[in-house]
Amino acid sequence: MINAGIIGAAGYSGAELIKLLLNHPETEIIKLFGNSSAGSRIEDVHSSLRGMISLEIELFNPDALEDVDLIFAALPSGQSMTVVKEVCSAGIKIIDLGGDFRLSDTSSYSQYYKHEHTAPELLKDAVYGLSEWNEESIASAKLIANPGCYPTSILLALIPLLKNNLINDELISIVSYSGTSGAGKSSSPSMMFTEVNESVRAYKAGNHQHIPEIKQYLEYFGSNVKFSFVPHLLPVSRGIYSTIHAAVKEGTTEKEIAESFNSYYGDKPFIRFLSKAIPEMKDVIHTNFCDIGFKLNEGGSLVLFSTIDNLVKGAAGQAIQNMNIMFGLDQTEGLLNCTKKKLLKIKQ
Amino acid sequence: MINAGIIGAAGYSGAELIKLLLNHPETEIIKLFGNSSAGSRIEDVHSSLRGMISLEIELFNPDALEDVDLIFAALPSGQSMTVVKEVCSAGIKIIDLGGDFRLSDTSSYSQYYKHEHTAPELLKDAVYGLSEWNEESIASAKLIANPGCYPTSILLALIPLLKNNLINDELISIVSYSGTSGAGKSSSPSMMFTEVNESVRAYKAGNHQHIPEIKQYLEYFGSNVKFSFVPHLLPVSRGIYSTIHAAVKEGTTEKEIAESFNSYYGDKPFIRFLSKAIPEMKDVIHTNFCDIGFKLNEGGSLVLFSTIDNLVKGAAGQAIQNMNIMFGLDQTEGLLNCTKKKLLKIKQ
Amino acid sequence: MINAGIIGAAGYSGAELIKLLLNHPETEIIKLFGNSSAGSRIEDVHSSLRGMISLEIELFNPDALEDVDLIFAALPSGQSMTVVKEVCSAGIKIIDLGGDFRLSDTSSYSQYYKHEHTAPELLKDAVYGLSEWNEESIASAKLIANPGCYPTSILLALIPLLKNNLINDELISIVSYSGTSGAGKSSSPSMMFTEVNESVRAYKAGNHQHIPEIKQYLEYFGSNVKFSFVPHLLPVSRGIYSTIHAAVKEGTTEKEIAESFNSYYGDKPFIRFLSKAIPEMKDVIHTNFCDIGFKLNEGGSLVLFSTIDNLVKGAAGQAIQNMNIMFGLDQTEGLLNCTKKKLLKIKQ
Amino acid sequence: MINAGIIGAAGYSGAELIKLLLNHPETEIIKLFGNSSAGSRIEDVHSSLRGMISLEIELFNPDALEDVDLIFAALPSGQSMTVVKEVCSAGIKIIDLGGDFRLSDTSSYSQYYKHEHTAPELLKDAVYGLSEWNEESIASAKLIANPGCYPTSILLALIPLLKNNLINDELISIVSYSGTSGAGKSSSPSMMFTEVNESVRAYKAGNHQHIPEIKQYLEYFGSNVKFSFVPHLLPVSRGIYSTIHAAVKEGTTEKEIAESFNSYYGDKPFIRFLSKAIPEMKDVIHTNFCDIGFKLNEGGSLVLFSTIDNLVKGAAGQAIQNMNIMFGLDQTEGLLNCTKKKLLKIKQ
Repeated sequence: MINAGIIGAAGYSGAELIKLLLNHPETEIIKLFGNSSAGSRIEDVHSSLRGMISLEIELFNPDALEDVDLIFAALPSGQSMTVVKEVCSAGIKIIDLGGDFRLSDTSSYSQYYKHEHTAPELLKDAVYGLSEWNEESIASAKLIANPGCYPTSILLALIPLLKNNLINDELISIVSYSGTSGAGKSSSPSMMFTEVNESVRAYKAGNHQHIPEIKQYLEYFGSNVKFSFVPHLLPVSRGIYSTIHAAVKEGTTEKEIAESFNSYYGDKPFIRFLSKAIPEMKDVIHTNFCDIGFKLNEGGSLVLFSTIDNLVKGAAGQAIQNMNIMFGLDQTEGLLNCTKKKLLKIKQ
Repeated sequence: MINAGIIGAAGYSGAELIKLLLNHPETEIIKLFGNSSAGSRIEDVHSSLRGMISLEIELFNPDALEDVDLIFAALPSGQSMTVVKEVCSAGIKIIDLGGDFRLSDTSSYSQYYKHEHTAPELLKDAVYGLSEWNEESIASAKLIANPGCYPTSILLALIPLLKNNLINDELISIVSYSGTSGAGKSSSPSMMFTEVNESVRAYKAGNHQHIPEIKQYLEYFGSNVKFSFVPHLLPVSRGIYSTIHAAVKEGTTEKEIAESFNSYYGDKPFIRFLSKAIPEMKDVIHTNFCDIGFKLNEGGSLVLFSTIDNLVKGAAGQAIQNMNIMFGLDQTEGLLNCTKKKLLKIKQ
Repeated sequence: MINAGIIGAAGYSGAELIKLLLNHPETEIIKLFGNSSAGSRIEDVHSSLRGMISLEIELFNPDALEDVDLIFAALPSGQSMTVVKEVCSAGIKIIDLGGDFRLSDTSSYSQYYKHEHTAPELLKDAVYGLSEWNEESIASAKLIANPGCYPTSILLALIPLLKNNLINDELISIVSYSGTSGAGKSSSPSMMFTEVNESVRAYKAGNHQHIPEIKQYLEYFGSNVKFSFVPHLLPVSRGIYSTIHAAVKEGTTEKEIAESFNSYYGDKPFIRFLSKAIPEMKDVIHTNFCDIGFKLNEGGSLVLFSTIDNLVKGAAGQAIQNMNIMFGLDQTEGLLNCTKKKLLKIKQ
Repeated sequence: MINAGIIGAAGYSGAELIKLLLNHPETEIIKLFGNSSAGSRIEDVHSSLRGMISLEIELFNPDALEDVDLIFAALPSGQSMTVVKEVCSAGIKIIDLGGDFRLSDTSSYSQYYKHEHTAPELLKDAVYGLSEWNEESIASAKLIANPGCYPTSILLALIPLLKNNLINDELISIVSYSGTSGAGKSSSPSMMFTEVNESVRAYKAGNHQHIPEIKQYLEYFGSNVKFSFVPHLLPVSRGIYSTIHAAVKEGTTEKEIAESFNSYYGDKPFIRFLSKAIPEMKDVIHTNFCDIGFKLNEGGSLVLFSTIDNLVKGAAGQAIQNMNIMFGLDQTEGLLNCTKKKLLKIKQ
């Protein structure tokens, strides 16, 4: 049994972590931390949790970590750095769902996140938690930088093709649409129902904080990566849909593209590569799946489609997938129930 | 040409007033007033108005009213009282879309609105602007208290039946659902998209500020009025749907109910009484119509359905309907375009 | 391990049953049946199930039931009767999610469902599966008539008060709003997105097929039950919200009402009675909870609020809760994961 | 007064035409035609029109056109060809909102629309009704091929830049999202509320029937046009949002891009070019505006944003704009009410 604590329990990712961990057979939530919510009971902050859990939210304090095996930090950007330092000092594993430890370059960090990095010494220990790509490093990590929601949907679609050298890395254009929970729980005029409903808008074109994250990890595979990323706000609560244009290397066939996905993700339980169908967002909502599809146009223009639930595969679900890997569990534990697994259990 | 000014131009009712007045052949908007928005141009506050109007919002000042024939005040409750006093002193007609002049009883006002009434001397001059009921008084009024959105939908359904003594006035239960624009434009955590979408909730059951307004005007017709009113929040931007249960007086027939509506509203252009169909909210959105229907169950239980657009018939549209009446215009001017009207114009 | 089969796997309730059963530690889905979907694989019919289950849908055939312990039938009304007969003849337990076995009176059935009942001989064996009310009978039943979605939300709110004689049973008015999945998966013009979105409408006022079901079970507790039930369509995918007006018996206090709920549901894991708050639909979506609240107005008018997920507590979830009861499992198995349960497991 | 007739009055574009024409001071609707709706009254087909118009829908018959000055045809693709022939033969002007007369190349037509063109002899007379581009030809046309909704949003954003040779025409990727009314009123399983709500999906990537239309008109300006177009379905009723990636010619500045739009559209009342802001769909809904914005990334990657209401500027509104041009009226007549226009009228 893994004793887990959550810092930032009052937010949307915090609530999702709690729901998923309650359904996980090998974990117990023993500590919840918050700032403005400290002193409240979690079921009063998230009324959906009534009848499932009853714990008081505490102000974070390293002394309270005694029995904790793993901390999930689900904090706004800039707030993780101090906390992560203290948890690491206490020798406790931590998965940070925020953006503070995803970039190796502190100058990119301060440019896009608009404040300085105060714990650069920890960056070398931080392992990027894109589970399907980085499984081995995750298994032995103490500090996981859990990927951003947009980068998760985008990198999972592009990595197999870049790795197999099937696309030109200089001409990638990415149009992503996200549901509103990605903007977090704090109140803002532009996120009011009447402003978002029956509308769509692009935002932060060219300066979204996920741009350097996408860039850094695409550059593991491409030598001259150039891309444009334009996020949009969608009138749904959850979900990300990324539509990516790229140009294939001359002569690349549909079959090669499909094989590239199948060989990279063949044994990965949470990637559903659709060789013939176009993904639909509703199929991944409330799941840890990433559904990926493609269309190769005449003339070599390739369109990739990738969709996830921003709170699950884009945040809390992938964090638990990483926890499973770190603690030697099957990576689907608590996240995916399927016939095969049940049949295997019966046979044992 | 009526020279109109709007106080509270930055809110949702303000924007709706502007759009409707721009489409009105006999008015011109010459002044816009606001508080926190003063100094901004209206097209920067409501980006949907770009290309249609360009005026600077001013801080309200009675000296600026020189050429104004009529003021619309679209302010949060409690903020109209001072302004209305000043406009009335200047001898200018005013239509107040807020709740400050709807109740004759200042103690009810302070109980439900949670602050004292500071202009009780004006209450005797205020005319309740439920256009279909009060047309004659509206025609000669200087100060109109424009009805609340919920009361408009509810009173229009009940008045004909109470007037004709067809229902028991002691046992009325009202369940209303409203879109989010009714809550206004100011930001609040409970009105964020993620909190409202894919959900429904009742609120202010038994203590909504529209209760004394409904009571006061039902009591014009019933001697012993007792009702319950429960408003709910709906995940749509606009619209109110009221479902009202009452008990008919013994022996009342469907035919009598239908005749009662037909005779009361026969010549009223904005009431669409449906003798056979059930109203749908989508049919009234963006219009000044109120669609009313009913179902008489065996045993004498009567269900009334009434639906309006909260920003049009429930606010700005009815205000303009009242303006038309006050200035001797056809009450549909600028609000309804129909074949009959066109044909009449051709024949002239 | 319970070997389960599902008849009607291609509908929304079928999909929900599959998802919930996959997450159930003591069941295995071994057979899926359908009509027009027969021959397809279930993951092609419900693309959200890809990667979780892969089974071919078969035409129903009693010979295929050999290893089946329990059948769930999720069929449109009128289609269960033949199938239930055959499953019962084969000596296999069955939970029918449709309306065919809920009414003891076949004349009510034919009046509201518009066709004759063809298996009246089985009605005496059918046990109404309102889990919180009927647990003992469910435990020994062979044939469960799983309650309708509206009746579940309504009966759970009214039963404790009628049983304790706190409300007048002659004057109950019920206004319910339901999400669109309640209308099933088959295509119809009035359920198209453009027709439902940004709208609301009442429907089947006074003649909905759930009226006799509500009546029959309210009459277990009241001697002179009279009520009106008006369902409405809501622009959300899932969820029911019922707002019920009743009159309390003279002198009834808030405390008595609260005690009545607390004593009736004190140990029931899926009923969350809120003595102070008003339920919100979003708190129950994707759960088997029913959240109940109330407001006692001056003068004795009582408003009850009750909300469920129509596909879970209103269909598949309650069916599995009943399965748990029938097979001697904890009734929350596979449906609710909570801290208490985990701690108990650890201690064992 | 223009006497107008509408063929295809029962669809969504038909309803929008009627509403807009009722608000038009210089037109009268004298004939409505339909197929399956023939014999019904229009207010029974579109209940929102009750109280505004009452006309019986007739089966189309050229003999009924005697007093008609102009026909709007709002028919599914393939159904206009016969009708247009008959209207043209009768010497009556026609605006066809469908796709049958937009392509000069009948082989493209049959490839994308999946049936043969049966009136190729009329193609030379058909004028493409993109009002801002083609005003002079529209003024003297007898047969207008009103543009598709997607092409309208896309061409309006690209034409000024291609014309001024500011972008590379070989590398354009277009991601568009559309509301559901674009799919028309006929019922289909994939357009049901439960299937569309809280989801997003791409469709017809690479084979949408608007591809040859976009291509044909881009080729007026570019010599080597290559583009990819990927439409998506959005859970809103109305609106299109297009996000277009292109590469600027080396050295092109933000200022040149802005000047290009300002000079091309400076006097066009329905194009709102936003030099600094990003367009929002809600600002154009229920209007004939097209809002256009852009973002020039470092490295020369340009993102264009263009949004319209698919039923107004993308269909009925642009059709009426074209009617205004054809009949020598101000092109905003009945479509745009703005302060400037009112002031001008007063001064006259």
